[in-house]
Amino acid sequence: MQKKILRTICPDAKGLIAKITNICYKHQLNIVQNNEFVDHRTGRFFMRTELEGFFNDETLLADLDDALPEGSVRELNEAGRQKIVILVTKEAHCLGDLLMKSVYGGLDVEIAAVIGNHDTLRTLVERFDIPFHLLSHEGLTREDHDKQVVELIDSINPDYVVLAKYMRILTPDFVRHYPNRIINIHHSFLPAFIGARPYHQAYERGVKIIGATAHFVNDNLDEGPIIMQDVIHVDHTYSAEDMMRAGRDVEKNVLSHGLYRVLGQRVFVYGNRTVIL
Amino acid sequence: MQKKILRTICPDAKGLIAKITNICYKHQLNIVQNNEFVDHRTGRFFMRTELEGFFNDETLLADLDDALPEGSVRELNEAGRQKIVILVTKEAHCLGDLLMKSVYGGLDVEIAAVIGNHDTLRTLVERFDIPFHLLSHEGLTREDHDKQVVELIDSINPDYVVLAKYMRILTPDFVRHYPNRIINIHHSFLPAFIGARPYHQAYERGVKIIGATAHFVNDNLDEGPIIMQDVIHVDHTYSAEDMMRAGRDVEKNVLSHGLYRVLGQRVFVYGNRTVIL
Amino acid sequence: MQKKILRTICPDAKGLIAKITNICYKHQLNIVQNNEFVDHRTGRFFMRTELEGFFNDETLLADLDDALPEGSVRELNEAGRQKIVILVTKEAHCLGDLLMKSVYGGLDVEIAAVIGNHDTLRTLVERFDIPFHLLSHEGLTREDHDKQVVELIDSINPDYVVLAKYMRILTPDFVRHYPNRIINIHHSFLPAFIGARPYHQAYERGVKIIGATAHFVNDNLDEGPIIMQDVIHVDHTYSAEDMMRAGRDVEKNVLSHGLYRVLGQRVFVYGNRTVIL
Amino acid sequence: MQKKILRTICPDAKGLIAKITNICYKHQLNIVQNNEFVDHRTGRFFMRTELEGFFNDETLLADLDDALPEGSVRELNEAGRQKIVILVTKEAHCLGDLLMKSVYGGLDVEIAAVIGNHDTLRTLVERFDIPFHLLSHEGLTREDHDKQVVELIDSINPDYVVLAKYMRILTPDFVRHYPNRIINIHHSFLPAFIGARPYHQAYERGVKIIGATAHFVNDNLDEGPIIMQDVIHVDHTYSAEDMMRAGRDVEKNVLSHGLYRVLGQRVFVYGNRTVIL
Repeated sequence: MQKKILRTICPDAKGLIAKITNICYKHQLNIVQNNEFVDHRTGRFFMRTELEGFFNDETLLADLDDALPEGSVRELNEAGRQKIVILVTKEAHCLGDLLMKSVYGGLDVEIAAVIGNHDTLRTLVERFDIPFHLLSHEGLTREDHDKQVVELIDSINPDYVVLAKYMRILTPDFVRHYPNRIINIHHSFLPAFIGARPYHQAYERGVKIIGATAHFVNDNLDEGPIIMQDVIHVDHTYSAEDMMRAGRDVEKNVLSHGLYRVLGQRVFVYGNRTVIL
Repeated sequence: MQKKILRTICPDAKGLIAKITNICYKHQLNIVQNNEFVDHRTGRFFMRTELEGFFNDETLLADLDDALPEGSVRELNEAGRQKIVILVTKEAHCLGDLLMKSVYGGLDVEIAAVIGNHDTLRTLVERFDIPFHLLSHEGLTREDHDKQVVELIDSINPDYVVLAKYMRILTPDFVRHYPNRIINIHHSFLPAFIGARPYHQAYERGVKIIGATAHFVNDNLDEGPIIMQDVIHVDHTYSAEDMMRAGRDVEKNVLSHGLYRVLGQRVFVYGNRTVIL
Repeated sequence: MQKKILRTICPDAKGLIAKITNICYKHQLNIVQNNEFVDHRTGRFFMRTELEGFFNDETLLADLDDALPEGSVRELNEAGRQKIVILVTKEAHCLGDLLMKSVYGGLDVEIAAVIGNHDTLRTLVERFDIPFHLLSHEGLTREDHDKQVVELIDSINPDYVVLAKYMRILTPDFVRHYPNRIINIHHSFLPAFIGARPYHQAYERGVKIIGATAHFVNDNLDEGPIIMQDVIHVDHTYSAEDMMRAGRDVEKNVLSHGLYRVLGQRVFVYGNRTVIL
Repeated sequence: MQKKILRTICPDAKGLIAKITNICYKHQLNIVQNNEFVDHRTGRFFMRTELEGFFNDETLLADLDDALPEGSVRELNEAGRQKIVILVTKEAHCLGDLLMKSVYGGLDVEIAAVIGNHDTLRTLVERFDIPFHLLSHEGLTREDHDKQVVELIDSINPDYVVLAKYMRILTPDFVRHYPNRIINIHHSFLPAFIGARPYHQAYERGVKIIGATAHFVNDNLDEGPIIMQDVIHVDHTYSAEDMMRAGRDVEKNVLSHGLYRVLGQRVFVYGNRTVIL
């Protein structure tokens, strides 16, 4: 018996749930879990169906294509362990949490490789017996460096690319190469601060809350569809450095939990938003 | 065009979603929102379907009865404004929030009456032009007092009874008279404190979190199915009185939000748990 | 016996706490609570001292002036009930919470008057036997309208002016008239949205967290020193209207709690930050 | 120049802050940070003073003893890196977070050794080049096993003993050997569940919040003075296993943050409470 996840996005129409679940039923597939959402503003229908049974992918997808309205997208993927590549620079906290959870439970994921533009985190990665690749950007144009990184990632062929405090701005070519497959973690503040040293700006402004946002990278580095966010409270006794220390914990938690949802094939992107089912 | 909510609880079986949504489809009803949940441990299926259209309740329910497995429960209720009666003693915070939201937005509810076993809150209630009934417990047995309260409630015939800091233990007869229809708010602590003056116990123990739980009252006053919970952080500078002051805000928020979900017909009770769809 | 609060801001120096508390000691005043904070980056010292006893304000302040370094600011105010004026437009939620808490406990404050630029909230205010003044902005320049509002406020002479969803931008004259004495509540988002209909922008962007900020109004309406912030989690099922509804609860809680701290004379402003002692 | 932390607990009296800071002033010590708290219910005074300068410990403490009322306790300890021993069983999450933070920043601590009653976590510990000691409890009485553990800990002489999901109940002798120096992490629920498999009990009861408590172990394993607590929201879609997975993240965060405060010499124990300065 196999376990697969069917994801459907299509224009909303009467009877869609009935149609899709009828087809699953006809194929003798058991629905383990089913979640759907209709965005009435845009008239889009989203459904995630966790199925168990013996699959004939071809006929199942053909039946769905017959039943679904025009403009539908449906994917059928195996549930379970997926493969990621992690990109890092020098900060260890997000990487460390992913390594711990991949080995000791919490994330059902294979970390196929870690790529750093500095060598700082090699030891940490190798402690966990995972290949570390140094691809220094020194002396390279952004385009040339990204080309090398993309080639290396392509040779590994991961399901997702995770930027775990990778302090480089990706070229548009890099980003377009992995649509909705690059996940980034970004600090967040209320109010927001743009530019360099955001924690220092936040300190100057006396913010009482700092947070983090996990999101897909699509166009601008920090503006793709949001997957997950969380915050913690700080106060006037926090220096900018204290805020950074506290912020690191939020960042690692939000990235891990966001990735958990992505790996569970729960995150649907449409426009600049996500639906999480 | 009408809007109704269909709620189904039944033993899990293959094709249930298909069957139910097929019937709605056949009846020319539009599914505005649909949520379902399967509890695989107990094999129960739960579905909340928000429908729009022209309803023939009788034939719709008959069709459902034909299609659903034995042991199914299904309800079809109109969506929208419902009626509650609120029971109070002396504390104003929960009552005040419900009054404000019923008049100025936030809760689509008719507060048909407020019943107090003290007269303390009469002025507040009458400020909002809502009938206040004093039913003093003085000189009455618990049974006789509760009988009076039940008679008064029955004459108003509300959808739900809300205990907004009603500091009386209900008799089993009272409780059984409104199964899954009495909502209570209760303070909560980590760890829990049983007995009198819980805030003082919490203070003595130096707890760092205090909270509140909204729940249905079924058997024991504070042990019915949980609808919603929330907490706030406190520290050693809080006296027992400060904790109480802070706790009141959590209590009122949790009760209002819990009631919001109940009024939206989103809360399903089974056993001592709730499923919120 | 009286209770007063001494607030000191001065350049940091060795022995400050000793000097100040020695003087209190010499004056036979009991220190009920003392909190201090040193901002080592700017070399500022902040202290809040809650004192009990029989006060000779003049000699106490003179002794302090002798002991404290140049550039010191010290204030001695009675602890306890203070007076506010609330400005509103049409939304009731923040106003309602302040009214409830001023009458039924939670805020030790006298709401001397409510001023509205619309008449919408007159009934609510009058339910609580508090004077409501309509000062319509219709047909007036911003300057003329603000002049009327300031005149009315001045005639009441409150300790603080609270903007409880007052949807007008204050003129610089208004703002400068009450330095560090105007408190505003502002929605907050991660990321931030500037311009009209922020909840709709937040919806479009698919944010997972919405919040509120209570702050002093000094220069720009939404950019003064932050007093308090809080957030709640939302998800893709929230429409912009749902976000607004949820946001209202955060707004009212943050405004009430922020005001609670201000009334307790716990909030020190310096630069664009606050220290809360 | 050295940095030390002076901690004072004594009966409250007039002029205490003045006396203590005067002495520091006289000794030419700079007060970097000072926090105090008076518990008016019990009449106890607590003060944490971070000092910088050249210390003559003997004369400083003698001066303090002369000045402070009878029944005072004062400690003067170097600020900075302290030494811990961690006890574990089979679960990796809390241990992993402590290892990561001790090496890569977040906790200024030397993990001198990890002791396990199972060998499961040896590899993880050795990945970080820290000694792992297996002290199996098999075939030993609780007393004999604890004696071995205590002997090993004593030979290492740590500042604190951290129970990072050590699934053994300590003997009273063990506990008394390290008063206020053993830190434990414990799951917490609203309401609380006593006995085996608490996550399964919480699931059955349909709780909406799960949490964790870091506390000192003094008498009963799970009832010592609370250092820190936090919670997360869960819902009906969480199985007992999902709750456990989510709970692990809260546990590790609470233990790390609680330990951070203890290492900063910020946690004062009195009775069964803590004051955190």
